[in-house]
Amino acid sequence: MAAAPTFKPFTLALVQLGQIGADKAANLKHARDVVLKTAQGGPTGKKPDLIVLPECFNSPYGHVHFPVYAETIGYEPGQAYDVAKSESESVKLLSATAKETGVWLLGGSIPEKTPDGKVYNTSTVYNPQGELIAIHRKVHLFDIDIPGKIKFKESETLTGGTTMNYFDTDFARIGLGICYDVRFPELAAVSARKGAQICIYPGAFNTTTGPLHWELLQRARAVDNQIFFAMCSPARDLNAGYHAYGHSLVSDPMGKIVGELQHKEDVLFVDIDPEVFHSARAGIPVTTQRRFDVYPDVSKGF
Amino acid sequence: MAAAPTFKPFTLALVQLGQIGADKAANLKHARDVVLKTAQGGPTGKKPDLIVLPECFNSPYGHVHFPVYAETIGYEPGQAYDVAKSESESVKLLSATAKETGVWLLGGSIPEKTPDGKVYNTSTVYNPQGELIAIHRKVHLFDIDIPGKIKFKESETLTGGTTMNYFDTDFARIGLGICYDVRFPELAAVSARKGAQICIYPGAFNTTTGPLHWELLQRARAVDNQIFFAMCSPARDLNAGYHAYGHSLVSDPMGKIVGELQHKEDVLFVDIDPEVFHSARAGIPVTTQRRFDVYPDVSKGF
Repeated sequence: MAAAPTFKPFTLALVQLGQIGADKAANLKHARDVVLKTAQGGPTGKKPDLIVLPECFNSPYGHVHFPVYAETIGYEPGQAYDVAKSESESVKLLSATAKETGVWLLGGSIPEKTPDGKVYNTSTVYNPQGELIAIHRKVHLFDIDIPGKIKFKESETLTGGTTMNYFDTDFARIGLGICYDVRFPELAAVSARKGAQICIYPGAFNTTTGPLHWELLQRARAVDNQIFFAMCSPARDLNAGYHAYGHSLVSDPMGKIVGELQHKEDVLFVDIDPEVFHSARAGIPVTTQRRFDVYPDVSKGF
Repeated sequence: MAAAPTFKPFTLALVQLGQIGADKAANLKHARDVVLKTAQGGPTGKKPDLIVLPECFNSPYGHVHFPVYAETIGYEPGQAYDVAKSESESVKLLSATAKETGVWLLGGSIPEKTPDGKVYNTSTVYNPQGELIAIHRKVHLFDIDIPGKIKFKESETLTGGTTMNYFDTDFARIGLGICYDVRFPELAAVSARKGAQICIYPGAFNTTTGPLHWELLQRARAVDNQIFFAMCSPARDLNAGYHAYGHSLVSDPMGKIVGELQHKEDVLFVDIDPEVFHSARAGIPVTTQRRFDVYPDVSKGF
């Protein structure tokens, strides 16, 4: 494994996208428009280094929709990928938008189909040259049933991914995950122990689980691993079949919320300060105090 | 491994003990007095099934004090232990108090010395017959240095334990840990995956780390593992060398705080309802959705 990049200050922009409806072309156009605008800079005028879109931004969120909206991506880790030959219109659009803006782009997630007939919930990541450089397929499928509140079963149509993933930029190593993955501490633990200084998960909690656990889980992942942790939600649309929680959020490594949106379409700009990461680890040095002589290290072997 | 006991409703009492000073005999007498009173019942008059004392309740908290106050316990897991022959006055007192009250007693923690010259921060557990049935030696030593706020180094005089521990009552399997152990998710994860329905850690956070992380860490352990989670602190004494946070707390498996004290000497009585445990796991079934094909199970082999 290569060493993680030196952690440098950077500006993160979480796009809490709204207007996600049945028209995929309209969804893609709106995502592109908001990313282009976001790349021009936030309230301080500072251009972001990394822009993040939410989970399932090109399709309505629902298991009946995933196979209908799914696209073939065909990305294989470690192999060259030619966006120009991609069968995925979403990949082409995201790539072109990253290149046009010259900004890193974590393209939320989209339904992906593979030649074996499976459908995944997949994140794609682009560098400022527009190259697709990493993907993450949601590992933990969102199957829940809280009586009288919410029932949802992604596994009706989706397959869970089988790999944990991070990617390197020129300012940080960034751990990936999607939404329900955050309930399983292992993914963030592995990314952090492999050198990630921040994890960013596109995610669409809902109006039941959001108030219960959205903030708690992110702050817990941040403090347990002493990393920055961010999640980017779609805006809430009470006319949609699924009511996303919104509240896109960034926690610092001490568990302090350094930025949070409400539930409408909006963009959260946060300046990520590596000094907080270093002082957290110096003050409460859990990263050097783990007792792998007593229990195993889940990141070993990755 | 034996199956965990069936989870039954029970009443938990956390004794947030005050008046912990230099006089060990006085500390022990006060602890005994408060436990005897607690055993008579809380606000509803219901007798508790399990009483918990805080970390380091027979000694001032400080690395210079640990060797001075340390006692030889000589407990070996799986071997018969005769309290009458114990060299530890604290063990004798706790045993007698448990027997006299007929209540399970998690005796906070005390400094323990072993024949090899090591000193541990050790919890002892007694059944209602007064038998010592389990111990836990704090695995993760509290060495922190937050400039201008707090510096503490348990490892100056203490050695960390090398085992993870839980014990069975007639109402639940209970996972053990002490204070700083809560920052390391593995202990609670192993206890929960081995069937513990609740973890209880004596702990003395301070007025710096308490407001930052006391509540967050407990709620996170509860939600990630879908168990009850409780910590029992000493009362705050601003005349002592170490300012304990207080705020003894119980979180349910959904991360809801079902009881919390302020910082003075007080007792927290909480009725533990297994129904919350079962409904949490039925609604958001993370305990059956973990992907041990993707990452290892830290509890495997224990």
